[in-house]
Amino acid sequence: MGNKAAFNIAIVGATGAVGQKIIQLLEKRNLPINQLRLLSSKRSAGKRLFFNNQEITVEEATPESFADVDIALFSAGGSVSKKLAPEAVKHGTVVIDNTSAFRLDENVPLVVPEVNEEDLQSHNGIIANPNCSTIQMVAALKPIQEAFGLTRVIVSTYQAVSGAGNEACSELEEQTKQYMNGEELTSELLPVKGDSKHLPIAFNALPQIDVFQDNGYTFEEMKMINESKKILHDEKLQVAATCVRLPLFTSHAESVYAEVGQNNLQVADIWKVLDGADGVTLEDDPETQTYPTPLSATDKEDVFAGRVRKDLDNDNGFHFWVVSDNLIKGAALNTIQIAERLIHHKWL
Amino acid sequence: MGNKAAFNIAIVGATGAVGQKIIQLLEKRNLPINQLRLLSSKRSAGKRLFFNNQEITVEEATPESFADVDIALFSAGGSVSKKLAPEAVKHGTVVIDNTSAFRLDENVPLVVPEVNEEDLQSHNGIIANPNCSTIQMVAALKPIQEAFGLTRVIVSTYQAVSGAGNEACSELEEQTKQYMNGEELTSELLPVKGDSKHLPIAFNALPQIDVFQDNGYTFEEMKMINESKKILHDEKLQVAATCVRLPLFTSHAESVYAEVGQNNLQVADIWKVLDGADGVTLEDDPETQTYPTPLSATDKEDVFAGRVRKDLDNDNGFHFWVVSDNLIKGAALNTIQIAERLIHHKWL
Repeated sequence: MGNKAAFNIAIVGATGAVGQKIIQLLEKRNLPINQLRLLSSKRSAGKRLFFNNQEITVEEATPESFADVDIALFSAGGSVSKKLAPEAVKHGTVVIDNTSAFRLDENVPLVVPEVNEEDLQSHNGIIANPNCSTIQMVAALKPIQEAFGLTRVIVSTYQAVSGAGNEACSELEEQTKQYMNGEELTSELLPVKGDSKHLPIAFNALPQIDVFQDNGYTFEEMKMINESKKILHDEKLQVAATCVRLPLFTSHAESVYAEVGQNNLQVADIWKVLDGADGVTLEDDPETQTYPTPLSATDKEDVFAGRVRKDLDNDNGFHFWVVSDNLIKGAALNTIQIAERLIHHKWL
Repeated sequence: MGNKAAFNIAIVGATGAVGQKIIQLLEKRNLPINQLRLLSSKRSAGKRLFFNNQEITVEEATPESFADVDIALFSAGGSVSKKLAPEAVKHGTVVIDNTSAFRLDENVPLVVPEVNEEDLQSHNGIIANPNCSTIQMVAALKPIQEAFGLTRVIVSTYQAVSGAGNEACSELEEQTKQYMNGEELTSELLPVKGDSKHLPIAFNALPQIDVFQDNGYTFEEMKMINESKKILHDEKLQVAATCVRLPLFTSHAESVYAEVGQNNLQVADIWKVLDGADGVTLEDDPETQTYPTPLSATDKEDVFAGRVRKDLDNDNGFHFWVVSDNLIKGAALNTIQIAERLIHHKWL
């Protein structure tokens, strides 16, 4: 497959928030596409979507959908991936999966191209795209780890509702209107679709993203912890996470504390490695109140870092603030970049 | 003054967000009031406000305003406190100051009654009320410190706009309407009134509260760091803070990491000391998705704690989530509680 000039690409979950963003980005980028197939659940099949001004009818995703597909980009939830990704692989399709289904599988590389592109080489048909909040954090941590070593990370997140899909955006919009009209807020989805209790997100902060695990952490927090260790190739790296959903539509922000492997470093040393890092833009100048925010990062491809400060008590500790569009680098873009690198290196 | 049956109370900044909340709370609580005087800037003087169904005309605060005043509650900004609090003290008035003007002054006690009530005894006419984000954090940290020792704290905040006053609430409301109407957002106040750049808060997160200091931390972050050490009586306590303003009207939330002085503790040990603590309500049950949120804490007097988890790598580390109404316990209530304790102990 490595010498093909153009590829048949399928998007599974084409009508969802991430699927739609993938279609948008494929129009802008240079992935050589022969045919694009849009797949979805039975419920959304039949919808018509546009790609490069060409109308494409969405088809129901079935095990047979992948017969001529070279690369399938999955963003339709973990259960769909678990069922259909192995079927796609049987057809020789390479799956890039945007769900948590295979991320911690030893046989599945978990990749942020700027961080661990080389892991792609050992894939067995499935490559996992990390969780949105993990991607932007490791993109900023990697250059620090490489330059100075990295021993410990404590992160608190500020996450947008679009991470929970289009329906969650509608819920925030609806509740915002209700609040402004002095009406009672109706909560039917967040914090977690399918969990038993629903709480208002408008003008609120919900310290629960995804379901609780037995250890008291949420699944989102455990994703950040486990995925970071895997991507940064350090099982001994100490990672702690608190994940919070906020009334923002797009872009996640993160307050990150990192302990590095060297002493006597200054803020300028951290700035230097972040500034030159692939996929990272440094926006940090207290004098001019320059720092990234969710609104400033929205619709942009990079991971933005700012507010770098040295810890006042620990010589090897630094605090900083990382923001990125959760649907772009946090999902759609990273997925496409994986496909681009596979093609570039002929690692399909 | 200690044996008086009722006291003349003045509120300086009576028309502000905190001043109005003080008036509301004084109606509910048992402070024995002989006369209530409402003071403000020249601009707001002449306004009429109600206290216990009695109309009171707001007067301009001047050095002479305090002649018969036993206790003055200041919430009109640091410059007003710096100018008028010493004048009030000359009249024998005891000042409880809600600004940052005197908080780190060695001769001024900085008090959260549940935490360090005894410090009130050594006052010299001025007592400082801590910063809102500090109050709720130390209220939760104190019982932990007392039971197990406390060596280190790392906090990331999720702060409401009402901490920046009524004007900031109006700005969030206005921008929310603009956003929902697809209009451009006009930013004239936040993140900091008087700072050179203004940024939208609606559907955004601003990692700046108060102005930047030379060390790259904001003044809000340095308040949390320095005030916590003073209130908890431990200059060696390691405290780090990242303070973030969010599109919420009321109640601050905090993601807190704390290292304690004992090993082998479990979540149940932390629960036990938080549950019985004065002014703290524990809301923590992952099985029933029980945790505090800004909306659930609004209009309530307590500090709410939840999401207690043991760090996965450090035996003495715990993560938790603290929420409280920033205008009540974070400001007005704590101010009034200080007055109540002064009267109760005859420490005026």
